[in-house]
Amino acid sequence: MNNNSIEFRKLEHLLVCNYCDVEYKKGTLLDDVELIHRGISNCDLNNIDTSIELFGKKLDAPLIVAAITGGHSKAREINKNIAKAVEELNLGMGVGSQRAGLLNSSLIDTYSVVRDYTSSLVIGNLGAVNFIEDGWDEDIIDKSVNMVDANAMAIHFNPLQEAIQPEGDVNFKGIYILKNTIEDYKKKYKNIPFIAKQVGEGFSREDAEILKNIGFDGIDVGGSGGTSWAAVEYHRIKDENLKNFSKQFLEWGIPTAASILEVRSVFDGTVIGTGGIRSGMDIAKSMAIGADCCGVALPILKAALRSSDEVINVLEKMIKELKTVMFLVGCDSIEDLKKSRYIIKNELKEWISSK
Amino acid sequence: MNNNSIEFRKLEHLLVCNYCDVEYKKGTLLDDVELIHRGISNCDLNNIDTSIELFGKKLDAPLIVAAITGGHSKAREINKNIAKAVEELNLGMGVGSQRAGLLNSSLIDTYSVVRDYTSSLVIGNLGAVNFIEDGWDEDIIDKSVNMVDANAMAIHFNPLQEAIQPEGDVNFKGIYILKNTIEDYKKKYKNIPFIAKQVGEGFSREDAEILKNIGFDGIDVGGSGGTSWAAVEYHRIKDENLKNFSKQFLEWGIPTAASILEVRSVFDGTVIGTGGIRSGMDIAKSMAIGADCCGVALPILKAALRSSDEVINVLEKMIKELKTVMFLVGCDSIEDLKKSRYIIKNELKEWISSK
Amino acid sequence: MNNNSIEFRKLEHLLVCNYCDVEYKKGTLLDDVELIHRGISNCDLNNIDTSIELFGKKLDAPLIVAAITGGHSKAREINKNIAKAVEELNLGMGVGSQRAGLLNSSLIDTYSVVRDYTSSLVIGNLGAVNFIEDGWDEDIIDKSVNMVDANAMAIHFNPLQEAIQPEGDVNFKGIYILKNTIEDYKKKYKNIPFIAKQVGEGFSREDAEILKNIGFDGIDVGGSGGTSWAAVEYHRIKDENLKNFSKQFLEWGIPTAASILEVRSVFDGTVIGTGGIRSGMDIAKSMAIGADCCGVALPILKAALRSSDEVINVLEKMIKELKTVMFLVGCDSIEDLKKSRYIIKNELKEWISSK
Amino acid sequence: MNNNSIEFRKLEHLLVCNYCDVEYKKGTLLDDVELIHRGISNCDLNNIDTSIELFGKKLDAPLIVAAITGGHSKAREINKNIAKAVEELNLGMGVGSQRAGLLNSSLIDTYSVVRDYTSSLVIGNLGAVNFIEDGWDEDIIDKSVNMVDANAMAIHFNPLQEAIQPEGDVNFKGIYILKNTIEDYKKKYKNIPFIAKQVGEGFSREDAEILKNIGFDGIDVGGSGGTSWAAVEYHRIKDENLKNFSKQFLEWGIPTAASILEVRSVFDGTVIGTGGIRSGMDIAKSMAIGADCCGVALPILKAALRSSDEVINVLEKMIKELKTVMFLVGCDSIEDLKKSRYIIKNELKEWISSK
Ligand SMILES: Cc1cc2nc3c(=O)[nH]c(=O)nc-3n(C[C@H](O)[C@H](O)[C@H](O)COP(=O)(O)O)c2cc1C
Ligand SMILES: Cc1cc2nc3c(=O)[nH]c(=O)nc-3n(C[C@H](O)[C@H](O)[C@H](O)COP(=O)(O)O)c2cc1C
Ligand SMILES: Cc1cc2nc3c(=O)[nH]c(=O)nc-3n(C[C@H](O)[C@H](O)[C@H](O)COP(=O)(O)O)c2cc1C
Ligand SMILES: Cc1cc2nc3c(=O)[nH]c(=O)nc-3n(C[C@H](O)[C@H](O)[C@H](O)COP(=O)(O)O)c2cc1C
Repeated sequence: MNNNSIEFRKLEHLLVCNYCDVEYKKGTLLDDVELIHRGISNCDLNNIDTSIELFGKKLDAPLIVAAITGGHSKAREINKNIAKAVEELNLGMGVGSQRAGLLNSSLIDTYSVVRDYTSSLVIGNLGAVNFIEDGWDEDIIDKSVNMVDANAMAIHFNPLQEAIQPEGDVNFKGIYILKNTIEDYKKKYKNIPFIAKQVGEGFSREDAEILKNIGFDGIDVGGSGGTSWAAVEYHRIKDENLKNFSKQFLEWGIPTAASILEVRSVFDGTVIGTGGIRSGMDIAKSMAIGADCCGVALPILKAALRSSDEVINVLEKMIKELKTVMFLVGCDSIEDLKKSRYIIKNELKEWISSK
Repeated sequence: MNNNSIEFRKLEHLLVCNYCDVEYKKGTLLDDVELIHRGISNCDLNNIDTSIELFGKKLDAPLIVAAITGGHSKAREINKNIAKAVEELNLGMGVGSQRAGLLNSSLIDTYSVVRDYTSSLVIGNLGAVNFIEDGWDEDIIDKSVNMVDANAMAIHFNPLQEAIQPEGDVNFKGIYILKNTIEDYKKKYKNIPFIAKQVGEGFSREDAEILKNIGFDGIDVGGSGGTSWAAVEYHRIKDENLKNFSKQFLEWGIPTAASILEVRSVFDGTVIGTGGIRSGMDIAKSMAIGADCCGVALPILKAALRSSDEVINVLEKMIKELKTVMFLVGCDSIEDLKKSRYIIKNELKEWISSK
Repeated sequence: MNNNSIEFRKLEHLLVCNYCDVEYKKGTLLDDVELIHRGISNCDLNNIDTSIELFGKKLDAPLIVAAITGGHSKAREINKNIAKAVEELNLGMGVGSQRAGLLNSSLIDTYSVVRDYTSSLVIGNLGAVNFIEDGWDEDIIDKSVNMVDANAMAIHFNPLQEAIQPEGDVNFKGIYILKNTIEDYKKKYKNIPFIAKQVGEGFSREDAEILKNIGFDGIDVGGSGGTSWAAVEYHRIKDENLKNFSKQFLEWGIPTAASILEVRSVFDGTVIGTGGIRSGMDIAKSMAIGADCCGVALPILKAALRSSDEVINVLEKMIKELKTVMFLVGCDSIEDLKKSRYIIKNELKEWISSK
Repeated sequence: MNNNSIEFRKLEHLLVCNYCDVEYKKGTLLDDVELIHRGISNCDLNNIDTSIELFGKKLDAPLIVAAITGGHSKAREINKNIAKAVEELNLGMGVGSQRAGLLNSSLIDTYSVVRDYTSSLVIGNLGAVNFIEDGWDEDIIDKSVNMVDANAMAIHFNPLQEAIQPEGDVNFKGIYILKNTIEDYKKKYKNIPFIAKQVGEGFSREDAEILKNIGFDGIDVGGSGGTSWAAVEYHRIKDENLKNFSKQFLEWGIPTAASILEVRSVFDGTVIGTGGIRSGMDIAKSMAIGADCCGVALPILKAALRSSDEVINVLEKMIKELKTVMFLVGCDSIEDLKKSRYIIKNELKEWISSK
């Protein structure tokens, strides 16, 4: 493994995320959402139904493991552990960027391993910037879908990460090219849903409008509050000047709660709330303000480095909390939860009043 | 006394409340209510009339001792001490949940003792969840009323407490059943008022509308800011996982001030402001924003564990403060106080602007 | 001097004010008023005119020494020091409550001394509560006016102070009696202006309306933020229970900035902003939001206990600051300052939006 | 060099600024502006165009070095270092107040040195107060323009600084005289643009309206948040009373963000955002809320005391950050940036809602 290879970089990302403090200080702003206790409840806690349908699959809770990894030796085990957990709990998962697998076929099984362990929802993952810079097309998508028998395909947008990486691809000009590529893929291959996914800085309302026009079926807001890519790169960078530079952007981005509200205000498709989701309370609040499902990466990564059971523990704890919150806000079902009243306070209020 | 018996649990609750810090950190939000000094007063402090009529009884101040206990040896003394104080000051009181007395008739006198010491307002207490789970009916109510010669009957709703107790009853589905039960009781037995009572997490506006439809005459908001049931259970729980789980809910609930405003906005009946009421200032503010009376539990419990005189001291101090505040806001009577101007600040403002 | 005599109490007040921290923690809310820098100024700092006319007298700055003392040996010197300073700077002053002088004619010269040193504006001082409780009439007013050859008469309202003093007069019921008394005095004796004066807890909008009806020509808001009477009494009280009681009211009252805004919103007469005025910036802000003049007590008391020159120093410093602020907000005259734009922030905003 | 001479004072200013903490504690309020991440970017970071046209000159970034110095030995080197950097990066610069050069022709080359090193935009600098107090006219302007071959002329307004300096010129009355002087100069000499410049306390909306009427082509808001002149003078003053006096004004002034918004709301000409600009993020925010260009003094002064390369480093870092921010908010050009959506929070919001 070469020091400058994608593999090495991806492994370094994992280690930095596991050992360093890489989370935003400013939070997701979900703390500025207040769910309202229903003193009479009128629910049976043992019969709360948290199931949803996502991209044609039934999930037992509105919770997926967000895209994390693939493309190096350690990745195989992580993806296996996640897949086993997801199968056990009937949830969904994304694999990490499949570029390494496309460039080097010997790495394919670090992704495809997930299908040895789960038949649940699996979401593929490719980078938007490569469609512009490397001329990727519908055939590349097809290879990626087949690699993991993907039920849906996420295209990730990561301008901040690219801008801060010394080796970054920073040409996002002409992103509209994706419109044709997606249409071509759907015509030529399979009609699976496409998701635009941010990796931790969120999408704005304006973004959502463009993504809708491009033809995306879902948007994973990937907002600020959890893993900060500026922080991850900050820990990797040796050069003092570049380190200081990345420091300026440690807190850059749209907090997850704000991004959900912004995107939902103009987008009718599926909205996934990812970025700093750490509890069932966070999930409940995300759903109340407009998300259809939530995604979690960092805590799952840490658990998956240990075992599949650890992943199950983390996910189960969140689901139990979610159920209890639903019981307390008097919602039997996710549908009810999405319609429940909430209060928006403090900084988050500035976002909803922004014209 | 068996470790898992109701009696043992109830006693443990008392001890935890007496020795541990079980109060919400976030407060009642009554601090966000500002009463307005009237520089000319135009009152005689020695002739401030704090009396009210509550459920057909005249009280010398808008203050009752909230439901605390019954059903075990220690309870008898506590209830006696409270009853003596209440008689002395002509206030009112609630007894704790009467379930133990219904299940075990030898415990009845731990409740009925109150009638040996007071002819003031006494409010009975039963749990809403038992009407669903255990099929309780109007005859159970009658037994309970008779047990303490109750002037009014409180039905408590405690979904959070039940959800966090490992041994909790968590089926609140079908709460509308109470409509018939209450009607039947009133027809078959006595036309006394019924109060829906939360135990520390508050009722919302939506709750109040349903409670009105069910036919409740009064609502005791039992809001957040004082005793936190998640905190009480947190201290009792040994298992590390369950302990952590309860921790997530330590601050859950609608602050008392918010709950008073929410309930009053849709409910014309009697509103009792309980939860974190700790001073005459708190009472005055509660009345100004919509309550008809206030209830206090925790400080009274602590005093009642010592003596009846201690209970009197605590209550008298609050009443003296209330009178002074009324003098300073230029209100001779509770009726005036309820019409006085006030300012709502900070977080509480978010609640009144919530649609 | 007897321990329970007015004289002894008044002296104790002076000493507590001089040695203890008796000021409100919450401030005057003048910090929530932002004056707006005028970058071009268009003024000559050496020709800023701070003079005003107050109750028929020309003052060189909108600044008077608020009512402080009279009625005991130490008072004579204090009043002398203040009078000399006021004469030197051509400002105005109030004497303290004249009740002691009315009750004991040997104490008269502790008040009348001011006329040996100044021909500037002097304001007499009587307590509103005595007109109710002791049946005072227009003849009492006449005696008081003559005692200091008063240019105006202040009637102070101090319900909080009375409520907290164990020996307090707490019957303010029937304050409307003042309407006739003032009319009678004006008819029978002299047509001088009457000022309603709070001593540190402020007047509300409702108060101002009543005071207008009673016939007051001016209102000295005497708001919260400076000397707290609950704090003064707190330091004097020995009994632990009473001490704790007074503690509850340490922060009670309408902050000076809020009181100026409230009173000005309904009252066209003269408004004096007293309570926590500590700098020329405070004066400038008070004038901008509606005051016609400001009053200062505590810092003057401390200076007057030393010398007349010290009093001059304190006052001159404030006036120099006031001039500089006027220069920076581009106002040549007090009239201009009263029309200058300002911003209201934070808590003070709650007051102006209160209905 | 005499201790009281302008030269000595100017040198002392430099040293105080270099060694002491002279910056406002309250900040520029640019932190209350939130730019909105655009997750899709749709820009190529390597092709972001930050160029603007300012006063007829093309600049490679919307950034000039604000007026700092001239008139003493050290000034020559500082101006040389700045000029070299500005030439290298194709930006603009202002020279310090040219009064010393006008009074003493041997000091002229401490200003004119800039033209030995740059043909970029150079802005001359004179004090508004001298046109009133010393009767300066269009010929003085002509001499100043010629001294540095100025492309534009800044007239600085510094009432606070003058008010606090014991030796200050404090007569700003009759500032309208500038209208004729500027007209006369333009008619008789050259039609170059005139800029009204504050030195760190900001211009208000009312100021901007007057400056427009006087005929200024541009306004450099020179707002609060960076160098505080009260702080600079505070460090210079020895006398304890004067020191305390200046302390009252350490935080006086309109924060830069507020001043940009105020000025832009009524002024169509060129707006320069100076005062506390310390990063490319600050520049981007200033442009988004209404500035056409930004100016920086303090960090440049510190760098210029070392070398020209240091100045280049500071400026380049800011430009790189600006480009990255533009990439992240999806703006290819400054024109786009000026139209991008932003959120205004907290205290800054009070300014825009002020009538
Ligand atoms: C180690 C690591 C690797 C990641 N790799 C990818 C990736 O390849 N593709 C992608 O779309 N997102 C990737 N993400 C972003 C996550 O999917 C998620 O959006 C982000 O971490 C925010 O969620 P969190 O706060 O729960 O970690 C990665 C995150 C982590 C921590
Ligand atoms: C030890 C203890 C026991 C309680 N038991 C009951 C009960 O049996 N029934 C009930 O309706 N409320 C019960 N409560 C709730 C109180 O009536 C009250 O609503 C709550 O404690 C909030 O008031 P506080 O902050 O003044 O304690 C109990 C409270 C305490 C502290
Ligand atoms: C020692 C002392 C005595 C006072 N006595 C009187 C008084 O007799 N009559 C009165 O109207 N106000 C009296 N006041 C109140 C002051 O006039 C003033 O309203 C109040 O102290 C608030 O101003 P400050 O914060 O500048 O002290 C007294 C204040 C002090 C400190
Ligand atoms: C040492 C020093 C000298 C200055 N001299 C002048 C001057 O002569 N003329 C002027 O218009 N501004 C002058 N300024 C003000 C600056 O141009 C600028 O408006 C102000 O310092 C705020 O910017 P900053 O926070 O980046 O320092 C000077 C600033 C400093 C620090």
